[in-house]
Amino acid sequence: MQVFMADKKRTLALLGATGSIGTSTLKLVEQFPERFRVTVLTAGRDVSKLIHLARQFHPEHVAIADPAGYASLRDGLEGSGIMVHAGPDAIVGLATHHADITVSAITGLAGLLPTLHAVRRGGIVAVANKESLVTAGAVLLKEAKSAGATILPVDSEHNAIYQAWVDPSAEHVESITLTASGGPFWDSDLEAMRTATPSEAVNHPNWSMGAKISVDSATMMNKGLEVLEAAVLFGLPEDRVRVYIHRHSVIHGMVAYRDGSHLAQFGPADMRVPISYALAWPERLNWNSTPFDLASLPPLEFEHPDNERFPCLEMAREASRRGGLAPTVLNAANEEAVSFFLKEKIGFLDIAALNGHMLDTVNADGEVSMESILEIDQRTRQACSDWLERHNRN
Amino acid sequence: MQVFMADKKRTLALLGATGSIGTSTLKLVEQFPERFRVTVLTAGRDVSKLIHLARQFHPEHVAIADPAGYASLRDGLEGSGIMVHAGPDAIVGLATHHADITVSAITGLAGLLPTLHAVRRGGIVAVANKESLVTAGAVLLKEAKSAGATILPVDSEHNAIYQAWVDPSAEHVESITLTASGGPFWDSDLEAMRTATPSEAVNHPNWSMGAKISVDSATMMNKGLEVLEAAVLFGLPEDRVRVYIHRHSVIHGMVAYRDGSHLAQFGPADMRVPISYALAWPERLNWNSTPFDLASLPPLEFEHPDNERFPCLEMAREASRRGGLAPTVLNAANEEAVSFFLKEKIGFLDIAALNGHMLDTVNADGEVSMESILEIDQRTRQACSDWLERHNRN
Repeated sequence: MQVFMADKKRTLALLGATGSIGTSTLKLVEQFPERFRVTVLTAGRDVSKLIHLARQFHPEHVAIADPAGYASLRDGLEGSGIMVHAGPDAIVGLATHHADITVSAITGLAGLLPTLHAVRRGGIVAVANKESLVTAGAVLLKEAKSAGATILPVDSEHNAIYQAWVDPSAEHVESITLTASGGPFWDSDLEAMRTATPSEAVNHPNWSMGAKISVDSATMMNKGLEVLEAAVLFGLPEDRVRVYIHRHSVIHGMVAYRDGSHLAQFGPADMRVPISYALAWPERLNWNSTPFDLASLPPLEFEHPDNERFPCLEMAREASRRGGLAPTVLNAANEEAVSFFLKEKIGFLDIAALNGHMLDTVNADGEVSMESILEIDQRTRQACSDWLERHNRN
Repeated sequence: MQVFMADKKRTLALLGATGSIGTSTLKLVEQFPERFRVTVLTAGRDVSKLIHLARQFHPEHVAIADPAGYASLRDGLEGSGIMVHAGPDAIVGLATHHADITVSAITGLAGLLPTLHAVRRGGIVAVANKESLVTAGAVLLKEAKSAGATILPVDSEHNAIYQAWVDPSAEHVESITLTASGGPFWDSDLEAMRTATPSEAVNHPNWSMGAKISVDSATMMNKGLEVLEAAVLFGLPEDRVRVYIHRHSVIHGMVAYRDGSHLAQFGPADMRVPISYALAWPERLNWNSTPFDLASLPPLEFEHPDNERFPCLEMAREASRRGGLAPTVLNAANEEAVSFFLKEKIGFLDIAALNGHMLDTVNADGEVSMESILEIDQRTRQACSDWLERHNRN
């Protein structure tokens, strides 16, 4: 365990600074200037926001993944003394740059290689990039072990389980539980879901998130990907990763021990809670000292998932059981399907149909490696495009 | 931290073997013969049950607190090779006997000296004797520190908080929470409580317990004593020890951290859960592998306490704020008041009246020591008898 030195600032590399997790991370850094020094900021495309953040936090390096953004980034930071880079390789390069903690908050499979390199470098890697863990979790954990890196989950559910997992081994753990809000369609029937529009699907009841993850929450594929993630992170088979619908998102995750005790983490639906846990681990940041008034909470209720209306969750369990490259196929299919849906090329229920079809038809044999993951990801996306073409012809 | 050796049996001294906690403890020991060896069993008066248990568990020593029980105990264990002792001093003597873990499950203030001596001896002391912590908590913690002993709370609420208190220091803890079932009179009005009979008062909705603690639950003095206990155990002022009414007793305790995270312990209303935690600490015993089906739980609801109908809770907070010997006065007054009520000498609401009167009138000045605790305990009980005499004359 790398012990936090309270009298020394932690250096922080933030990969994916302009997104929602990046923004919440920097809000916390801003509140604790004596605890953190930002050394690296990267972004995908949003040059102007990156310039703004770089001028505020004065990292040593910034990088923009889109090479076309290089010139404006360089010009915008002229005279700041900040080193400016561009292109996906530059992001990977900065992930290997020394930092006490790296927050991996890049969206999508683009986060895979930077996360891998941050893990190989050692230190603490706070992973908000679900895709890395879903597609390459076992590889990342193995690399973390040999590099002495600590992977901390930032997803609120996994972070909750991490906090509630107080025992050193899995020997006394019966199961872990992720809660799900049920998303915007939990009370809808299949007919309403068939005709759901993108704006209805992104209207999440509890959390304010990006469009892709909001749609994943509406299909419950989000929870499926989280089951895949949790099974790898905590070393349990998927049938020991339980999911309950908990509409109010008060309890985020739970560990059931074999002695009858259950430990659960509660918290406001605010991503700063898990992010601050990861930033300060194994300590905590004292930024939110208003405990819940339990008496003002709604009654806490739990329901079982509904696999008929929300088949994506069970598809993810199937991918977890198959293992290997199957989760990569499902993840790629789902990214394409959600993108087709958001562009109104397919209906809401077609997302699950396309995911299921790809899981059943794309050949996921082969060893898991960065190369095979990227290759099967591309192959699946191509198969999705082909499917869409046929779908539109019919 | 004393590390548990899985390949070595823990020796166990059980003080108060014939009561409810003792019985639950031995049920667990029976299930894990490879983990525990009972070396000491003591009881207050129940000679025949003690003989039965001694024949089953073959300790090295047994003791009965009531000297009148000596001859029958000796005769009943003739030829067993078990050493037989009697009298309160013998109980204290056996508390100092070497054991890896002592379970202090004696009821009432009689548990104070044995608990103190077990703590002084070092090792692990699982404390179910509330009175020790309420009256002499600070002394016990100080002695534990100098002897290198670990005090583990067995009360389900304190055990829950102990499990959910995952940080090494109190720096990041905002507050702790004890839940209360509300007892049998939570839905009653004052008039119904005024005429409540002992059999109504001991009819606890969730837990099966002895008469004294059931009445304490009905007045909510039980929760008051638990606030006193928690404040000492966890080193927090009473206003950072929160109490919520949680009718279903699913969540037992909670820690709120200053980063917005709350960790809570859930479990069935079965004392074996906290006892097994204490017996195996820092490991766990895998005896109960049926996790809650959260969907089959009633909705989890929380209410604020009602100080008007249940003033005992606030009296305990007052005693905690005053500190010193005030908790001893309140504890003694309450034991007497409950005993008067169970003998139908006073009404249910008189319990709180007597407690409040004693807290306000008995002089609780002076240093806390074993002597001063026992002295003021006697003085308070005498004052209660005097009060009862006056009460009955009027």
